[in-house]
Amino acid sequence: MSGAGPTGASGAEERFDGVGVIRAKREGGELAPRQIRDLMRAYLSGEFAEEQMSALLMAIFWRGMTSAETAQWTGAMIASGERADLSGLGRPTVDKHSTGGVGDKLSLIIVPLVAVFGAAVPQMSGRGLGHTGGTLDKLESIPGWRPDLEQDAYLRMLDKIGGVITAAGSEMAPADRRLYALRDITATVESVPLIASSIMSKKVAEGTQSLLLDIKVGNGAFMTDLGRARLLGSTMIDIGEAHGVRTAAMLTAMDTPLGRAVGNAVEVAEALDVLGGGGPADVRDLSVAEAEAMLKLAGVDGDPAAALADGRALAKFREMIRAQGGDPDQPLPDSPVLGVVAAPRGGVVRRLDAYAVGMASWRLGAGRSRPGEAVSAAAGVMCLAKPGEPVTEGQPVLELRGDDPSRLDAARAELAGAIEIGDDSPPSTPLILERIGV
Amino acid sequence: MSGAGPTGASGAEERFDGVGVIRAKREGGELAPRQIRDLMRAYLSGEFAEEQMSALLMAIFWRGMTSAETAQWTGAMIASGERADLSGLGRPTVDKHSTGGVGDKLSLIIVPLVAVFGAAVPQMSGRGLGHTGGTLDKLESIPGWRPDLEQDAYLRMLDKIGGVITAAGSEMAPADRRLYALRDITATVESVPLIASSIMSKKVAEGTQSLLLDIKVGNGAFMTDLGRARLLGSTMIDIGEAHGVRTAAMLTAMDTPLGRAVGNAVEVAEALDVLGGGGPADVRDLSVAEAEAMLKLAGVDGDPAAALADGRALAKFREMIRAQGGDPDQPLPDSPVLGVVAAPRGGVVRRLDAYAVGMASWRLGAGRSRPGEAVSAAAGVMCLAKPGEPVTEGQPVLELRGDDPSRLDAARAELAGAIEIGDDSPPSTPLILERIGV
Repeated sequence: MSGAGPTGASGAEERFDGVGVIRAKREGGELAPRQIRDLMRAYLSGEFAEEQMSALLMAIFWRGMTSAETAQWTGAMIASGERADLSGLGRPTVDKHSTGGVGDKLSLIIVPLVAVFGAAVPQMSGRGLGHTGGTLDKLESIPGWRPDLEQDAYLRMLDKIGGVITAAGSEMAPADRRLYALRDITATVESVPLIASSIMSKKVAEGTQSLLLDIKVGNGAFMTDLGRARLLGSTMIDIGEAHGVRTAAMLTAMDTPLGRAVGNAVEVAEALDVLGGGGPADVRDLSVAEAEAMLKLAGVDGDPAAALADGRALAKFREMIRAQGGDPDQPLPDSPVLGVVAAPRGGVVRRLDAYAVGMASWRLGAGRSRPGEAVSAAAGVMCLAKPGEPVTEGQPVLELRGDDPSRLDAARAELAGAIEIGDDSPPSTPLILERIGV
Repeated sequence: MSGAGPTGASGAEERFDGVGVIRAKREGGELAPRQIRDLMRAYLSGEFAEEQMSALLMAIFWRGMTSAETAQWTGAMIASGERADLSGLGRPTVDKHSTGGVGDKLSLIIVPLVAVFGAAVPQMSGRGLGHTGGTLDKLESIPGWRPDLEQDAYLRMLDKIGGVITAAGSEMAPADRRLYALRDITATVESVPLIASSIMSKKVAEGTQSLLLDIKVGNGAFMTDLGRARLLGSTMIDIGEAHGVRTAAMLTAMDTPLGRAVGNAVEVAEALDVLGGGGPADVRDLSVAEAEAMLKLAGVDGDPAAALADGRALAKFREMIRAQGGDPDQPLPDSPVLGVVAAPRGGVVRRLDAYAVGMASWRLGAGRSRPGEAVSAAAGVMCLAKPGEPVTEGQPVLELRGDDPSRLDAARAELAGAIEIGDDSPPSTPLILERIGV
């Protein structure tokens, strides 16, 4: 009853038919490459309105996208900005991306660890939003460290040091930023093709030749279901390959926090422990496994475990920090222990709920609830006892740190039921659940 | 990963959670009455943004709404404006609504026909958009006739004459106008609960006590499928009953144009023929059947066929036209016959495609492609031969009228394949396919 008519129809061949595209996807059809290119251009020019894009996003949430559509959608987002060319570096490039977990400080360890062996890691990272922290937030707890780099300083760092962790520039996939903001207010975030294309548009634009995806699975992760995590992994791999980026994935467990530290400065401290050859076994083992996978993708030989043991990884990290204005010899911000959560009985810790711990850390001030909000460097949660470890009744299991005692009650509330203590050790579960392509 | 947080959560109980509502519907949940009330209020105040509403509309398109949700949604749209109270009239009120067909001039006949017997018909009507015309557009071809009435003139007409056809005021269900405009650009028009609530919000707000729905089914109608038409009918009846309006429906055939005239002035002329006791049998029979049903709903006795035969209906129509500034004695606008479509062979007309004829009339200038566009009063199509009638080779079947010869080719193009001629009469099909509640 609406739409084209005697006047509307003449010249309709030239104009972009936004309603037609929404209708086609609503009916479960596959959008042609040209339709996707045209709609992204029309969106950026304002011809395809925000209201129309949000209806299309909900239709995509409902109907999905084929592998070809998803690759094309990602390509159209990349084409909205610049794609870096790092081929002149003279080093193979490899990056990793984690979908986000509680206590996941692996980038801080892996970027220098891989750079030790001559690969360049051009990691453009983001800030945390929600219960998982952001790598930039963690690094900013190091006195003096700055995330932003001029283009030539960035390339010089990649060339001389090999590892860089920096903020994504506004010229990278600007369409993704607009789409993400729209998805956030329209309940269209949790769509596999939309998640995959959002992540991959930035990683492809960053210019890396190869990429390892760490897809966290479990109640502390964005994906709680192994099947969906696998689908997300294969979708991202397809996108990467379609755009010439050698891509592989690991599905890793995220039901319990990684390591003992959850927060910003506390996670940096733990990363320094691992870089210095110590630290919790889970963080160390997963870092080594991922670094090995990345080196393999980059075609570079190397023994990451040795580089942790002999100090080369720590030295590389200190070099990276200094190059971005940080002083690795300054003490990290500290904050008082506001309270503890004690074991209600003696026994063995059977479960320590990652999501609850992440939420508690967030409530203590380590995370933000709105983009742009400041976070506390020192706030966080220390896991003094982890699954499989024995405790006596009344022994502190969690230590809640922060500068604002008024936040303590909310943090405690998140932790109700988060600790489970039993008589026997829980069954041991692997850190790496599955590998795809590596 | 997004949304609530330490600060976001405090006070979240009071704020309207728009993303939560979209998510609930996206997951197939039923929205609570309070959620629907709150979201419509938030939409009108701008707190629930257009982008959010369009994502919600697509989720409703996908997941549907229950009968309770649809009634509540309609109620929230009614509550966005005024609901007329016609209880002081001293006449029973009854209206009819057609979902739109080609050559459907029944309102012009039925409103005065029912008013003859003492019922008041407070018809607030709209303009045409697309291949079906609008009642107001047709009436405006009568010299001097104006659709707009002041409130007191409107009530006086209802009281003294009984029948009024007027434009819906901007105070009636303003939320529906905004939602319709949004649905139009986001490919969310064709959803049964959204169509039903849009129509019914205006009809309930209009203040009628009872309502007959004429749901057209066939290729010239909005609903081409009997099952969906039945669903639309029962959905609208449920809404009407939930809001205290006695509602019934007829499902009527719309595969071939109603009567012989399709356009504006030509349809008025045909309506005058029927009001005067003549005219095509299908228009007359359906008018009588609908008028009988409306009188029954209104609890009023009367013999509509007799009122057509003895001139009372025509006299009432002339009275209505005069009360709105029209001169029923002035000749209607005329326009030249630009061309004809002739029978390609001799035989019997088996099919005359309603949609094609509607589109041809539209292309000749009788309809508009954008709200607000002017339409031609005289343009249209005359069906000189209809299904079941014999033709000889070369005999004109359709006459194409209009003031703009440059539109003729486009109109002819719509009619390719619209006429089917065979050796035998087509099987006769009933005009009224089903009745619900009357």
